[in-house]
Amino acid sequence: MKTKLLTIILCCFVAITNAQEDEAVLKTVFSTSLTNGKSYAWLDHISNKIGGRLSGSENAELAVQYTKKELEKLGLDKVWLQPVMVPKWERGEKEKAYFETSGFVKEVNICALGGSIATPDDGISGKVIEVKGLEALETLGKENIEGKIVFFNRPMQADLISTFNAYGGCVDQRYSGAMEAAKYGAVGVIVRSMNLRQDDLPHTGSMSYGDLPVEQRIPSAAISTNDADKLSKALKSNQALQFYFKQNCQQFEDVQSYNVIGEITGSKFPNEYILVGGHLDSWDLGDGAHDDGAGVVQSMDVLRLLKESGIQPKRSIRVVLFMNEENGLRGATEYAKVAKEKNENHIFALESDAGGFTPRGFSFATNDTNFKQILSWKMLFKPYLIHYFELGGSGADVGPLKSETNVLAGLRPDSQRYFDHHHAANDTFEHVNKRELELGAATMTALVYLFDKYGINQIQNNKELKD
Amino acid sequence: MKTKLLTIILCCFVAITNAQEDEAVLKTVFSTSLTNGKSYAWLDHISNKIGGRLSGSENAELAVQYTKKELEKLGLDKVWLQPVMVPKWERGEKEKAYFETSGFVKEVNICALGGSIATPDDGISGKVIEVKGLEALETLGKENIEGKIVFFNRPMQADLISTFNAYGGCVDQRYSGAMEAAKYGAVGVIVRSMNLRQDDLPHTGSMSYGDLPVEQRIPSAAISTNDADKLSKALKSNQALQFYFKQNCQQFEDVQSYNVIGEITGSKFPNEYILVGGHLDSWDLGDGAHDDGAGVVQSMDVLRLLKESGIQPKRSIRVVLFMNEENGLRGATEYAKVAKEKNENHIFALESDAGGFTPRGFSFATNDTNFKQILSWKMLFKPYLIHYFELGGSGADVGPLKSETNVLAGLRPDSQRYFDHHHAANDTFEHVNKRELELGAATMTALVYLFDKYGINQIQNNKELKD
Repeated sequence: MKTKLLTIILCCFVAITNAQEDEAVLKTVFSTSLTNGKSYAWLDHISNKIGGRLSGSENAELAVQYTKKELEKLGLDKVWLQPVMVPKWERGEKEKAYFETSGFVKEVNICALGGSIATPDDGISGKVIEVKGLEALETLGKENIEGKIVFFNRPMQADLISTFNAYGGCVDQRYSGAMEAAKYGAVGVIVRSMNLRQDDLPHTGSMSYGDLPVEQRIPSAAISTNDADKLSKALKSNQALQFYFKQNCQQFEDVQSYNVIGEITGSKFPNEYILVGGHLDSWDLGDGAHDDGAGVVQSMDVLRLLKESGIQPKRSIRVVLFMNEENGLRGATEYAKVAKEKNENHIFALESDAGGFTPRGFSFATNDTNFKQILSWKMLFKPYLIHYFELGGSGADVGPLKSETNVLAGLRPDSQRYFDHHHAANDTFEHVNKRELELGAATMTALVYLFDKYGINQIQNNKELKD
Repeated sequence: MKTKLLTIILCCFVAITNAQEDEAVLKTVFSTSLTNGKSYAWLDHISNKIGGRLSGSENAELAVQYTKKELEKLGLDKVWLQPVMVPKWERGEKEKAYFETSGFVKEVNICALGGSIATPDDGISGKVIEVKGLEALETLGKENIEGKIVFFNRPMQADLISTFNAYGGCVDQRYSGAMEAAKYGAVGVIVRSMNLRQDDLPHTGSMSYGDLPVEQRIPSAAISTNDADKLSKALKSNQALQFYFKQNCQQFEDVQSYNVIGEITGSKFPNEYILVGGHLDSWDLGDGAHDDGAGVVQSMDVLRLLKESGIQPKRSIRVVLFMNEENGLRGATEYAKVAKEKNENHIFALESDAGGFTPRGFSFATNDTNFKQILSWKMLFKPYLIHYFELGGSGADVGPLKSETNVLAGLRPDSQRYFDHHHAANDTFEHVNKRELELGAATMTALVYLFDKYGINQIQNNKELKD
């Protein structure tokens, strides 16, 4: 009985001491990030000195070299490049589009979707059939679609609080629109930009032809939300209006590229890996500051902030700057393949790929036991207004590392402005707020610190048995 | 025993029914605001068609007339203007400032602080003494200050999570700097802008001479953060550098102005008032979109959203657009005075004056009983990512309505970007995000709905006894 009581008292004492230590560490981490963060300066370079960095481009290569060099300055235990072959697609000369109705010519803002074929040199001209989604194609049938340009015009649903949910409800038009419309004999596809705002900017993004034979492929472009509305309005008075567009994009052979990786090797459990990462590639229209320059520099700063805060990790902490998230996921696939071959035990992987806005929390993909442990940490984040700890998805790049016992997570910043910039020409440095970016880096660092200290339940229990 | 059991069952049933109804109402309110809100269109007019509207200016009068007219369109039970005399201060011709050191002239960006006197026509020139705060004046004494320009250069503390706390820790320099420095014989005052960002924009704001005799008053201006750093650096190599500034501001006689008020009269408790408001006046450098155009249009939309959502209030709901928050608080003082004379029982007053950014929750000034009731509503807001329900301050305009039994509250939007724009030339419409603004209006409406439905504890208990 006495022993039991002593054990309880000891447990309480340890819990209180741990909580006090954790509170103090989080305070140091946030303070360091806000007063001595590097993320913003790195982002300035990546956005303004390098710029848009689509996989296979010269800029992507510059970003690889720059981030490797910067990681090398941090005094990590290892920094290396992991080779990966990536697709190379180029937009070419700026696209052109207009429609003609009642003798009036209206120019509209479009951009080729990533992976699309070009139009013929003299463009494509045709009647337009407007639909609200892929399912409308079957209803309309070949007789209404053949020879026409299909205009997918389902807007993002404005009354969803998470704009990512609104995106998820629309993006099938962009990704599969051309593949599906081609089956009904369409000659081209125009998709309303995935943007909750009314403006003149077309938003690019990946699309796929699936297994469609090369000769059946049709060009596909995004149109700005303002112009989508104008086109829709014009179609209401003249169904027979002619739409013209020309785009000059081209797919090349795959080229050599790299994931950039840095590591602090764990002092106690070096083969338990905690990964933090974002993707180094971006679309080509803006400078990719939010998507995903922010995630890249925040992830880099996690390792630096751990060191600056005097934290010596027990487990190995890796930053991985993935290549080719946008149009292939080749970097993530390669990283997971190599990790599996080497039997590297990734107990926790955290991705930041939702913009550099004020962090609100995390979405966790894990089992209930781990999630219960994670929820016990939530109160530590309250002083930093981090409140969102929910089960859900994690991120495209960490996804392939999923196991039954580990934890994947995605940073969840405020999402309201994200799709104003996503894949568009205004995804640029000046739309990232320094403090918001730094708060994100600190929030990530704090969570990495806790996973490093406490491990995950299954693992910890095994260790305790062994220790 | 049976009766007791029945009562318990009945109470549970009522609680469940209420919770379901409340969930449904909040869903309608948020959805209506995001798909059919008016706040953004109103803000567009106030910001872009009217612009900066300092108390006593022609623009302030235009804003009074415009908002009154718009409220009249909403089919409220009453709309009226409440007369109030307000101070009138004008900036005049743009300010000019530079410093000279080692034969080099560096122009700097300044603006007169609101309420400051002008410099003489040919400006003021003098040596500069840099201090970090008011308390340094006494240490330095008259011998080090007399005849000089005092440069208050304490930056906002970057590691505070709430930027309002950082502001609170600095603003004494701006408000009292001239009054205090004059006592030691200073000839002018330059204050580092209350801005957490490094940029070239000076931020104005109110200052006071207190009881200082007119002949002792000295001109006071804000300097941009970039130029504050340049000046500080230059002073380190040359303490004797000469600083010159010229400003042309002027204080006029008080002029007639108005609070704009609209009301839905309560169906059951018409003399229990629920107030929602923001301030109609703004500083003159920008168009006052965040401060406080956002609060004005959100407050207007609260009454409209209640109507659009089919809610018929039991209590009287008032929107009050206060005049002269920035440099006098005359509107708020007058409103509270009249409310007291008329014995109007304001059970709840909610202010939005912290920018049109993503809402995070509310700060409540009330007693523990009311706060307990408020916390019981918190879960209703979770789907909308509204998580901040804390005791604290409310707002300058609703402050005078405080009683021992009522509830005052301030909307708390994300604060990270607020002081990038506050009182500066970039407080403009394009920096307000439509969805963020609409989410704020919905959050306010939801809380007003709950206070209307449930009342406050003291009041509710009295009513229950009477009913």
